[in-house]
Amino acid sequence: MSEPAAGPLPSGPLPSGALPSGAVEEALAEARRKYRNWGRWGAADALGTLNYIDDGKRAAAARLARSGRTFSLAVELNSGGPRGGPSHGNPVHTMLDSGLDAAAGTQGFPHGFGDADDVVFMPLRSGTHWDGLGHVYDNKRAWNGRHCADVTTGAGDQVTGAERQAAAFVSRGVLLDVGRALGAGELGAGELPGGFAITEDQLRAVIAAQGPSARVGRGDIVLIRTGQLSFCRRLGDWERYAAGPAPGLSFGALSWLHGTEIAAVATDTFAVEVRPPEFDPPCHLPLHQIAIPNIGLFLGEMFELDALAADCAADGRYEFLLVAGGLPVTGGVGAPVNPIAVK
Amino acid sequence: MSEPAAGPLPSGPLPSGALPSGAVEEALAEARRKYRNWGRWGAADALGTLNYIDDGKRAAAARLARSGRTFSLAVELNSGGPRGGPSHGNPVHTMLDSGLDAAAGTQGFPHGFGDADDVVFMPLRSGTHWDGLGHVYDNKRAWNGRHCADVTTGAGDQVTGAERQAAAFVSRGVLLDVGRALGAGELGAGELPGGFAITEDQLRAVIAAQGPSARVGRGDIVLIRTGQLSFCRRLGDWERYAAGPAPGLSFGALSWLHGTEIAAVATDTFAVEVRPPEFDPPCHLPLHQIAIPNIGLFLGEMFELDALAADCAADGRYEFLLVAGGLPVTGGVGAPVNPIAVK
Amino acid sequence: MSEPAAGPLPSGPLPSGALPSGAVEEALAEARRKYRNWGRWGAADALGTLNYIDDGKRAAAARLARSGRTFSLAVELNSGGPRGGPSHGNPVHTMLDSGLDAAAGTQGFPHGFGDADDVVFMPLRSGTHWDGLGHVYDNKRAWNGRHCADVTTGAGDQVTGAERQAAAFVSRGVLLDVGRALGAGELGAGELPGGFAITEDQLRAVIAAQGPSARVGRGDIVLIRTGQLSFCRRLGDWERYAAGPAPGLSFGALSWLHGTEIAAVATDTFAVEVRPPEFDPPCHLPLHQIAIPNIGLFLGEMFELDALAADCAADGRYEFLLVAGGLPVTGGVGAPVNPIAVK
Amino acid sequence: MSEPAAGPLPSGPLPSGALPSGAVEEALAEARRKYRNWGRWGAADALGTLNYIDDGKRAAAARLARSGRTFSLAVELNSGGPRGGPSHGNPVHTMLDSGLDAAAGTQGFPHGFGDADDVVFMPLRSGTHWDGLGHVYDNKRAWNGRHCADVTTGAGDQVTGAERQAAAFVSRGVLLDVGRALGAGELGAGELPGGFAITEDQLRAVIAAQGPSARVGRGDIVLIRTGQLSFCRRLGDWERYAAGPAPGLSFGALSWLHGTEIAAVATDTFAVEVRPPEFDPPCHLPLHQIAIPNIGLFLGEMFELDALAADCAADGRYEFLLVAGGLPVTGGVGAPVNPIAVK
Repeated sequence: MSEPAAGPLPSGPLPSGALPSGAVEEALAEARRKYRNWGRWGAADALGTLNYIDDGKRAAAARLARSGRTFSLAVELNSGGPRGGPSHGNPVHTMLDSGLDAAAGTQGFPHGFGDADDVVFMPLRSGTHWDGLGHVYDNKRAWNGRHCADVTTGAGDQVTGAERQAAAFVSRGVLLDVGRALGAGELGAGELPGGFAITEDQLRAVIAAQGPSARVGRGDIVLIRTGQLSFCRRLGDWERYAAGPAPGLSFGALSWLHGTEIAAVATDTFAVEVRPPEFDPPCHLPLHQIAIPNIGLFLGEMFELDALAADCAADGRYEFLLVAGGLPVTGGVGAPVNPIAVK
Repeated sequence: MSEPAAGPLPSGPLPSGALPSGAVEEALAEARRKYRNWGRWGAADALGTLNYIDDGKRAAAARLARSGRTFSLAVELNSGGPRGGPSHGNPVHTMLDSGLDAAAGTQGFPHGFGDADDVVFMPLRSGTHWDGLGHVYDNKRAWNGRHCADVTTGAGDQVTGAERQAAAFVSRGVLLDVGRALGAGELGAGELPGGFAITEDQLRAVIAAQGPSARVGRGDIVLIRTGQLSFCRRLGDWERYAAGPAPGLSFGALSWLHGTEIAAVATDTFAVEVRPPEFDPPCHLPLHQIAIPNIGLFLGEMFELDALAADCAADGRYEFLLVAGGLPVTGGVGAPVNPIAVK
Repeated sequence: MSEPAAGPLPSGPLPSGALPSGAVEEALAEARRKYRNWGRWGAADALGTLNYIDDGKRAAAARLARSGRTFSLAVELNSGGPRGGPSHGNPVHTMLDSGLDAAAGTQGFPHGFGDADDVVFMPLRSGTHWDGLGHVYDNKRAWNGRHCADVTTGAGDQVTGAERQAAAFVSRGVLLDVGRALGAGELGAGELPGGFAITEDQLRAVIAAQGPSARVGRGDIVLIRTGQLSFCRRLGDWERYAAGPAPGLSFGALSWLHGTEIAAVATDTFAVEVRPPEFDPPCHLPLHQIAIPNIGLFLGEMFELDALAADCAADGRYEFLLVAGGLPVTGGVGAPVNPIAVK
Repeated sequence: MSEPAAGPLPSGPLPSGALPSGAVEEALAEARRKYRNWGRWGAADALGTLNYIDDGKRAAAARLARSGRTFSLAVELNSGGPRGGPSHGNPVHTMLDSGLDAAAGTQGFPHGFGDADDVVFMPLRSGTHWDGLGHVYDNKRAWNGRHCADVTTGAGDQVTGAERQAAAFVSRGVLLDVGRALGAGELGAGELPGGFAITEDQLRAVIAAQGPSARVGRGDIVLIRTGQLSFCRRLGDWERYAAGPAPGLSFGALSWLHGTEIAAVATDTFAVEVRPPEFDPPCHLPLHQIAIPNIGLFLGEMFELDALAADCAADGRYEFLLVAGGLPVTGGVGAPVNPIAVK
């Protein structure tokens, strides 16, 4: 949990020790037993916890858009910004032709017409995105108990692909600014250090501190700001962002993620959960392993939350309409998204 | 304007002859003189007609979301569906690994963890998208009078790239179901034939027929359904969709696009405007040439409007909250988008 | 076997009727029994019929390069040329920056330095290429009897990927200009019609007609010219090239492909074998199904053979040094290649 | 010129101080005056120094292939290996379907047919490649004095694209193993340290030491081994390879590159020339700036030379047939290549 390149941990809020005791396997087994939602919405379900949102919830969410102030929560997609994951790189955006070609007069259109056109190559997890239900498996089981080989093949997710949730990510959004509440010291105000595990108690404390507009309940989409995106941007260190230690949700927070019946949770980090994992011997994204295939919970990663957070801090209102439907890539196990918050 | 493969034109509504008289050059010159908005929002402007939307407009739009019924207006992105443009193909979605790999036990993660991951290669105009302000030029001038070579280089749009409008596409949406109103005969109810040029008079007639909820005014985002997407889907003929004759706005409708002070207009076709163009000798996308660089108007293409149209026809209400911010590809001259309508 | 768009078949050489009798399954079973080379080069083999080439063969092949006349046998890679396969499109080549950017003075290098850079997205089978041994399976068995799931996973071919044969495609090349020998009539001299199945007898007749330099033996790489690439280029019809009827090897020619102990065979078509297949009920690439996983034979597709063929016709010499190692994409089941013939 | 992470420079061979005196501008101006080949092969030339190779040269080169021992000089293309350039990443190879899909029985082919297919996205300079003549400019002039904007546009190189040299890279190859001759000490035998500038005198000394088979003359393709590729592979440090200090040709070696009338030069490094540059104030790839647009010389980068070098050391013969035509991407300013050496 040390993070040498960023200096010592802040003296104030320490990473919680309230972790599940025992081996990784026991913790995973207990979490499966307690939080598994298989069958809850029928055998054919492709929405998971998005089922918690209904038309009434959406209509109520729209009523939160009072001022019309609007925020895009997406990072820009380019080859020099944050990227998702250690191995497959940034989006690469290239022009098929450009204004320089038009200016050179080589495009061949009549009457003064000119144009520019472009393409992008991108890992679906390389910018702001939702992890799909077909993205992670627990002992070869995908969401709802399906065998992973029956869900996601070389042709993509045949059952729960991104195209199935295209209209579903509309709900009340709630921002929990954990970075602002608990971040302090040498890293910079408002930023949690790498390895900081956010516990259920801390989430409850932040909600209490933020006031009634921050209450969390069924069908909400919860946005958790850790400050890590700003921190890595300030350092210009996207390698750390993609592969280094990161603040994030403790494995123990699964209880809260499950019990609140939220529709989705997103953070400004690459993995939602704390890295490195809290377990010894090492494991790999244990919160993902429970949240996605067992709870059916959508995880949002690389959300750009600073401007929204500043607005919420200014007016004390932490709830808003959130419209965050990702690109419907057929069979996508990730969905790039430009989430829009309207207050 | 003939479309032999689709049979004879319907006997009812004929393509309008009320086109600008004279040569292409004269028509373009007149349109520039009448509709050019350069300087209207300052020299540094990167929003064009999106400036017509303000926070009050957005707040009012949110109040249109009463029932919570939600519609995604995006086509699915895959290699077998509609594509934008004749030459550069469909999105190609491939898996880096899949549930089959997880099932085979070759991924190397401990404790039963498994995952799937994916990438996409796509022209930014290959699915539902907004044309950016840097996409089309008129005699080497981009939006606001800038020289095209100063706007879009090999590194993308330096001034009005997609990242600049990421939060701006939130407003009242209005559906004008021209296909349903004027389409008839052999093609199938609700579908206009290729080459059908929608005039200003026809737009006004559709609005009148649809009633008060269909009135159009400043800052609205107007969605025009022609039925062509359904038509080509039924035929399984995406080559026609990308390159054949298409219904769309008449060049003469620029007066209405400009005068109503709408923020954006989108259709279920690939080019918004009628194809082939109404002019002789041939020209290339003349409505684009005026709308984008001169008016500063955002054009949306390949919008999936049938389900929304059915809902509007059912309840007689043609207005809704529209949230349609595209992916913020830095310097993008096109922005893939999953537009969400909430009624 | 009809090809209506190209007019009637030429009256001279007719498609052979000397096909295996009986059902598809019987023909496949017989071919497996007769031609299967599993185990011939050991359990770990990754070279298949390339094992027929040894250093002596290569040294002898080099001695065929007497005049130094050199031919590239690759089609150009671009979005407007021939493409491989019906669904995944052409190579897309885009610039990261160009001479226009350098001319605009926006690149930021000192002392007058400027540059251009580029990327390509391409199906590995979209231009001139070798099909890898992991590309096709026969009843879930890949080359050498391996289970297909043990060979090619989501991470590519783990056993026989393109990187394993990078140095192996050097040998004596022999051109068999079947198009010139048998093509006649309305299509144009030198071009066989779609559906024309080249039999073993016809191959032997062409060899005899071309003379001693066209003899075929162990370790040779045989190039068979049908004329279809020129035909489709003249028509500007690459859809036909990728998906229409095509001349090619008869299923019955497998006997010759196996018995001659050649190292590889390539054609100027997309599929080497005749299309549609000669069998009823329909099957899918039956020659591939025997040649790749059973014989271990490398098939080369989309070879550009016209200039080489003209030279061979002129000097009567049909043999040459062929150097045709594909790009070593790790785990590639296809290998793009620029084959070089030196006479 | 220090390279801290790799330890102190070896005590033996020091980086040469025999650099052009004076400022960068003076050195560039002098080199232009002395080495510029514009017009030498006519106004329409697209081959540059490849013109030094003629059919006689190629035929003589083929006679060097005596034993048939063959070497592929290409690095494997994948997301975990060496990459070209600091910003645009490695090749990304993904499967469209695989043996796992075939094994799962979901592909839908009859009679037991199954297959796998794949795509690649790659910067053209991300593996072993030739820099094209349109890749670098000197004060907005490309090879042969053409204005860079007339050569390489958004549509690629219109004059000297990779498709123009597809058949030209066949000649006598000569390996100069500078790493083996001069590398010593702490880095490991056979490897030159980062920042080591190889001078003309050192090249002559290596040739003399290697003996008559290493003489260099008109039309040869010279391969210079520095050992850096092995060094970075051993360290697992491809970041250093792409962006760190590297051994390479001294700017002063341009005299030799020009005077010997070689057809091309390639190294096992990413940039052929020494990095950082020998000049103060900093400049950018000064040897490229003279070699490509002024001499018309082809530079090959990321060549895999160790196995060939070992063979040459073993038999004392440093010459061979080299066949190294790159993929003919239309308009490519880089050409990925699998160079084949036959001894």
